[in-house]
Formats: sequence, structure tokens, C-alpha cells
Amino acid sequence: MSQTIINSSNLLADLRHVISSIPHDRLFLLSDSNVEAMVFPLLDDFFNEYNPVRIILPPGEEYKNLESLSKVWECLAAEGGSRKSLLINLGGGVVTDLGGFAAACFKRGIRFVNIPTTLLSAVDAAVGGKTGIDFNGLKNEIGAFAPAEAVILSTAPFATLPDFQMASGFAEIVKMAMISSPEVYAHILRLSEDNGLDLRASGFPLGDLVNFSVMKKAEIVEQDPNEKGLRKILNFGHTCGHAFESFLLKKGTPIPHGEAVAYGILVALILSNLRLKADSRLIHQYKSHILAPLFPPISIKCDDIDTLIDIMKHDKKNADGKITFVLLSAIGDPVIDSDTPEEDIRAALDIFIDMQ
Amino acid sequence: MSQTIINSSNLLADLRHVISSIPHDRLFLLSDSNVEAMVFPLLDDFFNEYNPVRIILPPGEEYKNLESLSKVWECLAAEGGSRKSLLINLGGGVVTDLGGFAAACFKRGIRFVNIPTTLLSAVDAAVGGKTGIDFNGLKNEIGAFAPAEAVILSTAPFATLPDFQMASGFAEIVKMAMISSPEVYAHILRLSEDNGLDLRASGFPLGDLVNFSVMKKAEIVEQDPNEKGLRKILNFGHTCGHAFESFLLKKGTPIPHGEAVAYGILVALILSNLRLKADSRLIHQYKSHILAPLFPPISIKCDDIDTLIDIMKHDKKNADGKITFVLLSAIGDPVIDSDTPEEDIRAALDIFIDMQ
Repeated sequence: MSQTIINSSNLLADLRHVISSIPHDRLFLLSDSNVEAMVFPLLDDFFNEYNPVRIILPPGEEYKNLESLSKVWECLAAEGGSRKSLLINLGGGVVTDLGGFAAACFKRGIRFVNIPTTLLSAVDAAVGGKTGIDFNGLKNEIGAFAPAEAVILSTAPFATLPDFQMASGFAEIVKMAMISSPEVYAHILRLSEDNGLDLRASGFPLGDLVNFSVMKKAEIVEQDPNEKGLRKILNFGHTCGHAFESFLLKKGTPIPHGEAVAYGILVALILSNLRLKADSRLIHQYKSHILAPLFPPISIKCDDIDTLIDIMKHDKKNADGKITFVLLSAIGDPVIDSDTPEEDIRAALDIFIDMQ
Repeated sequence: MSQTIINSSNLLADLRHVISSIPHDRLFLLSDSNVEAMVFPLLDDFFNEYNPVRIILPPGEEYKNLESLSKVWECLAAEGGSRKSLLINLGGGVVTDLGGFAAACFKRGIRFVNIPTTLLSAVDAAVGGKTGIDFNGLKNEIGAFAPAEAVILSTAPFATLPDFQMASGFAEIVKMAMISSPEVYAHILRLSEDNGLDLRASGFPLGDLVNFSVMKKAEIVEQDPNEKGLRKILNFGHTCGHAFESFLLKKGTPIPHGEAVAYGILVALILSNLRLKADSRLIHQYKSHILAPLFPPISIKCDDIDTLIDIMKHDKKNADGKITFVLLSAIGDPVIDSDTPEEDIRAALDIFIDMQ
């Protein structure tokens, strides 16, 4: 799997270049109505010039479903889409995940380009070829591994994002630094000491950090496209993170994906200390320098632990009732703990709750 | 893409062997109610021993749709399917195509085994990794390239098939011989002279011919899994064949896939003569030795030509309004004619209709 990744300083010019480099008969663009309102105006010239067939979904994770997928396929078919058509996914993770899956299956696969409009989708969803939809109450239950032909990364659309979405995306960058680079993680900690992680400050090197994170992800995915081994380290923080996310969604108090992962990382650090004797200072450093400045407290109680364990057992990454964590023996040194004992997970969650 | 293909003389023993060689947590079996009635009794011991979760679809191409697919996914999810679950597709092309696609996307891919119960699915659908469903009135409009972990070929279930389904499957064997082996095609012509292609006759080498066809297909698919080049030769007879099939289905007088392809081959032979100066005797030999003993006349009239051309232009294998044929300069020597002029296709269809 190899993907063209473009760090764009001129979205319109790079989009023109990408489109002209991919031969196609019909051009389609998938987006949602929020992005239509906020980001389309930045690309007026593109719309005038190329006039793509526009497919607009309602915004939100609840529309990342089979019905929306079917709607996209119907539109591709009705508007003369062929195997040589090209789909541009312009939006957050819902749009790039669903659009990528729609493209992967339409006529057994057409080419697509991702233009992430949120920080989270830039560093998490748009690169790496995981596509899919939610199904039966489970996230990404149905999907395919299918890489975008090209991913165009531009920080321009991020100006339209609320703060909590910026923080949510930044959590994935922190994760990448923790599993792969002591230097970059130390740099992020210094940034926190300096300005409390003000991601929009003019001197904040957001573009560089996005670039680091995406390139590192591409490198890992290139080596293990179908998540047979190495790629699993990208799930650091996600075992518990996904459980928090599902649990709070069901409770009616949803939190963003990145925020859930940020708290999942804290649990993973506690478990790393319990099982691998990782330095306990990592836990407190992370809590005070990353979590505190970026995220509000999370509402998880001791009574919730049984439910959380149950959700983890049903995660698609786990099977046979075993729960797999990615832990750190040190920053930059991830370890896949493929059968983490339930009692250790419970102990870590107890400590986690006490720390809130 | 590499697939284990087993020419089985003992279906139960081979099925046991395959299941034990693929580690899995839960075992699922997809089939349709016809196969349930006719073929399940042959596998009583298997059902008693393994007790797979059974998912039974109504029989027929009209159920190869998004609704059935969603039903399969729901059942996999509801019955505890994980990434390590195994799905057995026991049935004709609808079951293996839809089941393969369901498996390819469930949790981004679980393993599956195909056991074709019709001659057509044995030689056409079960091997080679093309999976999918019909959508919006178009065959296989949505799908994926995903090979079965193993394919178990047994002629035992064919005893339950009506004659027209046997003939339909045999057409794909004839096609394979024509594109790849003058020797095997000559052998089939001799069999026709000897016994008029009585496929059920005790001396008829059906198992050998199935084996030849499947192994040849596997060899071609191995070299070109995603149909970028070589694999296209498998579409010999299919450009017009698909158009006949779609047209007659819409008219309310459907014919089996293999029969449509058999007539599509005749058109391709006429075009081969027109465009490549292929020997015209091939046309008459094929008509008298293959079509006549196996298939009833086809109901296509001059007035239908416009509609047929239109259907071909919308086939997913074609784009930009161009129509691609696979032709033969001689038996065993296929040529991809990627932009066949419409007037030549019309001329060939005229000749075809005159020959009826």
C-alpha cells in the first residue's frame, strides 16, 4: 500500500495537481453539510472549474451507516460513475471513512482522494487505508482496507474547528510521539510548559507535528497494511479509549474520539507501570502536561468498570474474550500485550478513577 | 492472491480437514433454502459434529442484494462473530459471491471457505476472489476482490441440479478451453461428436474438465488478481453475454448466466472473424457442436440491438461509452479489443440473429 501524501500550503493548487494526475471520466465529491457551509467557500474556484457531482451527507457519526453508504452508491450509479471515476472525500473522519469504503466497493473499487478537514481526520482517519461504517451499534464494524490514491493535508480548514475538536485531533499526535519518538514527545512536553498547549498560537508548530504524525503513520502502515503485527501499536490508548467512547455515547454524554483516546492512554500508562514496570513518572507527567491543559475531566465511576470490561471484550480487535492492550516499556518502546489479565485492567481502572 | 483448491472425492472428510486447518473461534455457514433442502442431507455428520451458526437466504439472484447482505452481517454480529470467525459459503454463485463479500467487509475481513453446489459456481464464481452483490438493477455493482481461504470442489452436489443448470455451468468450461487450450477444446468437440455432450453420462469426464477449468482460472487470477490485464481474457463471451442476460431478465424471460455467455461467445466468434480474420469455421463448429446440443434457441430480435448496445455501454467493465470485447485470433489465442467499434458490434449481432 503506497499513498501520495501532500503537505499542502495551497489547497486549491494541490487539488488541481492531484486531479490532473489521476485520469478519470467523472468527478464526484462527497462531503457533509457542515463542511459544505464552512469549507466549500475556500474552494469556490475548484467548484467553478471542475463542477464535480456533489454528494452531501448530514453531519455526524450517527450518519456513518449503511443507509448513507447506500445513498452514496446510488448517486455514483445514477450520475454515470464507472470504474474510471474519481471520488474526492472532503470532510472529517466520517466522510473519509465512509467515502473510502463506498469507493472501495463501487464496481469493486474506484479511486479516491481524501482531503481531511479536521485535525483528527488528518492525523487519524485520512491516511492508512482503514475505511468503513458503523453497524449494529459498533464503530467501524463493516469496512475494508483501501488506501486513498492521494491525501492532501492542509491546516487551512482547521481554522473553522471548535477548540474541543482541535484537542481531540492533537491527542492522536501525542499518541504517535509516545509510541515512536522520545524526542518529539519531549518537545510536546516543553511546548506544554511554555504555552499550555495553545494549539492556535501563531508560534505553535502544528503543521510540523501533523506532518510528523502522518508520515510516521504512513511508514508503519506501509510495513503492515492489514494490521497483522506492527500496525497494532497505533492502537495505543484505543482499547480503553474505544470503551470510554462507546460507554459515554450509550449513556447519552458522548465525548470526541481523541478525548476518549487521551484518557485511554492514561489507563495504558498505568497498566504499563503495573505489568512492565514502566516509570510511574510517565503517568503523572502525561496527566499534568497533556490531559490537564487540553481536556475536561471524564465522567467514569467505579460502578462502570464491569460495563467497560464487557465492551472491551466485544471490540473487534479482541476475540475469545481476551483483551489486547498496547503498553509502553518506555516512551518510543511499545509492547503488544495480547492477553492482558482482566484483574490488571480492573486495577488500572480503579487507579485511573482515583486520579480523577 | 493464493487459494487452496481441493478436488474432493470425499466432501465430508475434506471439509473436516479444511476447518481444522483454519484456526477460528466461531463457525458460520451461509446457504440458501434450496441447498438446505437438497444438499444439507449429504452433510448430516458435519452439521452434527460442528453445529455451525446457519444463515439461510431465500434462493435466487433477486436476493443477491443489500438487504440480504445486511442480514448476514447482523447475524454474524448477533452470534458473536469476531475477526477470528470462519464463514463457510455452501451454495451457488449467489451464496459464494454474497457470502464472500459479507466476509470481506465484516470487521474489515474474516476468512471464508467456498463449497460450490452448482457446476457454474464451481467453475465460475467460487474461485478467483470476485465477490459482490447486485445493486440498482446492475449485476455485481458493489463488491470486492477477496479470495476464499479454500475452495472445496465436489461433483456430489451436482446430482441435484436440473439439466439447464448443468449446461449453464458447462459453458464456462468451454469458454476456458477456447481461450487457453486448443487440445481441451478439441477434446470437448470430440465428446460432442461421440455422445452429444451428455454431461451426466457415466463415461463423461466432468470432474477432469472442472479441474482443468478451475486450475486454469486460478493460474490466470494468481497472475492478475485485480483484473488489470491478463485476467480480462476470462471475460470472453461476457460482453454480449451479460447484455443478453440483463436484457432478457428485464423482459421477464430470464436465462441462466452460462447460457447467456454461451450465446455471447457466438457473437464474440463472429466479431473475431470480422475484426481479426479468425477462421469462420470456428463459428459454425461452435454452433453445431456446443450450442445446439446444450441450449434452446435464444429470443433476440433485430429490434433489440439498440437496447443491447446501450446495456453494454453501461457495463462496469466499460467506460467513456467504449465497449471492450475479448476476441480470439485462434482457439487458445485471446486478444483484448479494448475499443470495439459500435458498427462492428451491430454487424456481428445482425449475423448472430440471422443464424438463429
